[in-house]
Amino acid sequence: MRFTKMHGIGNDYIYIDCTEAETPSPQKLAIEMSPRHTSVGADGVILVCRSEKADLGMRIFNSDGSEALMCGNGIRCVAKFAYDHQLTAKTNLSIETLAGIKTVSLIKDEASGEVTGATVDMGEPVLECADIPVYSPVNVKRMIEYPVQTEQGEVVVTAVSVGNPHAVIWVDSIEQAPVHTLGPKLEHNPMWPNRANIEFAHVLSPSKIEMRVWERGSGETMACGTGACACAIAAIATGHCERKVDVILPGGTLNIYWNPDNNHVYMTGPAVTVFDGTYTPHFTKTD
Amino acid sequence: MRFTKMHGIGNDYIYIDCTEAETPSPQKLAIEMSPRHTSVGADGVILVCRSEKADLGMRIFNSDGSEALMCGNGIRCVAKFAYDHQLTAKTNLSIETLAGIKTVSLIKDEASGEVTGATVDMGEPVLECADIPVYSPVNVKRMIEYPVQTEQGEVVVTAVSVGNPHAVIWVDSIEQAPVHTLGPKLEHNPMWPNRANIEFAHVLSPSKIEMRVWERGSGETMACGTGACACAIAAIATGHCERKVDVILPGGTLNIYWNPDNNHVYMTGPAVTVFDGTYTPHFTKTD
Repeated sequence: MRFTKMHGIGNDYIYIDCTEAETPSPQKLAIEMSPRHTSVGADGVILVCRSEKADLGMRIFNSDGSEALMCGNGIRCVAKFAYDHQLTAKTNLSIETLAGIKTVSLIKDEASGEVTGATVDMGEPVLECADIPVYSPVNVKRMIEYPVQTEQGEVVVTAVSVGNPHAVIWVDSIEQAPVHTLGPKLEHNPMWPNRANIEFAHVLSPSKIEMRVWERGSGETMACGTGACACAIAAIATGHCERKVDVILPGGTLNIYWNPDNNHVYMTGPAVTVFDGTYTPHFTKTD
Repeated sequence: MRFTKMHGIGNDYIYIDCTEAETPSPQKLAIEMSPRHTSVGADGVILVCRSEKADLGMRIFNSDGSEALMCGNGIRCVAKFAYDHQLTAKTNLSIETLAGIKTVSLIKDEASGEVTGATVDMGEPVLECADIPVYSPVNVKRMIEYPVQTEQGEVVVTAVSVGNPHAVIWVDSIEQAPVHTLGPKLEHNPMWPNRANIEFAHVLSPSKIEMRVWERGSGETMACGTGACACAIAAIATGHCERKVDVILPGGTLNIYWNPDNNHVYMTGPAVTVFDGTYTPHFTKTD
C-alpha cells in the first residue's frame, strides 16, 4: 500500500489515495499506522476519495481510530496531494468533508511551480451562544469578553464556533499562560454542552496574535486551524485586530482573513510533503 | 534517497544502505529526518556501510546529530536489513561499530523464512569500579548491592558496564519506582565520571525481571539493550537469577544469557521492518 506523509504546521497525517481502490478498515489502519515509535507515526490517517458532490472527498481518522469531521491543516494537504498526484488539474478545489463541502485554493511558488500551501474557506463563524453551543444567562446572546467563574478565579472569555466550540482568553504572556491547569478545567466546564477548545492568545499588533491551544480531547497541541480562526475572530470582533491577522502557533503561522462582504473566514497556511512510502498492513495478514 | 524504518522493542531508526554510495552529511540528515511531527520521525539515522574488518559496518546518528558508539536494538535491525536487502547471505554476521566488531546471529521464523530477530554477542561485562568507571572507597573493588547516599535517602546500587556505565537498583514496584526523581540525581552523582544509565528493576522469578530505565542524556526510554544486559548481570551476580533471564522493558522483552564458559553476554530480541520510503533531503537543495 502506498502512502504519503504530509504536515501543515506540525499537524501530520498519513495520506492515502483511495480514488482508484478503497482502503479496507481505515479505522484499523489509523490505529496500526499512527504510533510513532513502533509504526509509521502520525496524528492519524486521511483518505483522499472520490466524491459525487465535490471535486474530491476526504475522511480523517484519528490515531485512536475515531473519525473526525474536519481538519483545517489536513484539508490544505489534501488539496496539495490531489494536485501533486494529478488527481485534479484544478487549483481551486471543492472538497467534501463530514462537516460539508469546503473550497480550497492552492498557493504555488512562482519560481518552482511547486504547491506550498493553500487557502481554505472556513465558512461563516458563529458567535451566538445558542448555536456554538454555550449555556449563558438568558439576556446574554453573545459571550464577548464575558466573565466566567472558575476554580482558578474569574477569566474573561470570548465564545466562538468555527464548526466546533472555542473559548478565547487574552493573556499577557503565552509562555506563562495556564494552558495545562485552566485549559482542562474550562474544557470540561458545564457551560459547554459539547466541551470546548481553549485558546490562550496575546495580541501583538492589530495584524498579529500569538496563541497556545488546549484541544478538546487532545490536550495542548502544536497547531489547531479552527483555534487560529477563533482567535482571529475574537480579536476582530472586539476591535483588537483588523480583518487580516497572522496567528502564530507553536507549530507555525496561519494567516486568517474575515471577509466583511460575505462574512466568511479564510485560513491560509503551508502544506508540506515529507516523504512517500509503502506499507503492508498487519491486520490484512491475520484478519 | 531510499530508506527503511525499523525498530527493536520501540527503539526506532531510519536505516540507509550506504554500501553502494555514501550518504553525505549524515549528521545533518539525522537532525532533518528525526523530528516526529514535521519530518519522517525516529530516534535517529543508522547507516549500513561496507567494512574492511567485518562483513558490514554501521554508524549511528542520534536525533541531535551526535554519533553514538553502539546500539543493541539498532544492531539487530542492521543484521535483518543486510539480510533482507541481500547485502549478505550470511546468518552469522560480524558488524563493525565504533565500540568494536560485534557478532550477530539472525533468528528466522521457520514457517515463513522471515528474519524476526537476532542475538548479539555483547562481549564481557565489567564489574570492576575502576573500569566502569565509578569512584569508590579504596577497599571497594566491585560495587555490588552497595549503599549510596542521595538526596532521596540511601539507595542500594550495583554498578556494571556493558560498554557504558549502569547503576541497577532493585525496587518492589517498577510502576512506583522514582525514575524521574532519583534517575537524574543518580545519573549526575559525581560518583560517575562519565555519568550513568540508571535501571530500576524488579525480580519476578529466577528467569524474569521487569525494569524501567533512565538513560544518560535521554531520560526515561521504552527500551535500552545495554540496560537490560546490566540488569540481568546484576541479578545473576547477586544470585537473584539464573544465567538466562527475560528482561521485560516498557517497549518489549529481551532475552539475556550470560555464558559462564566465555564470560560473554548474549542479547536476543526482535527486529521489525515498519516501511520503506523515499525522501529528498532539504539541505541538498540549499547547501
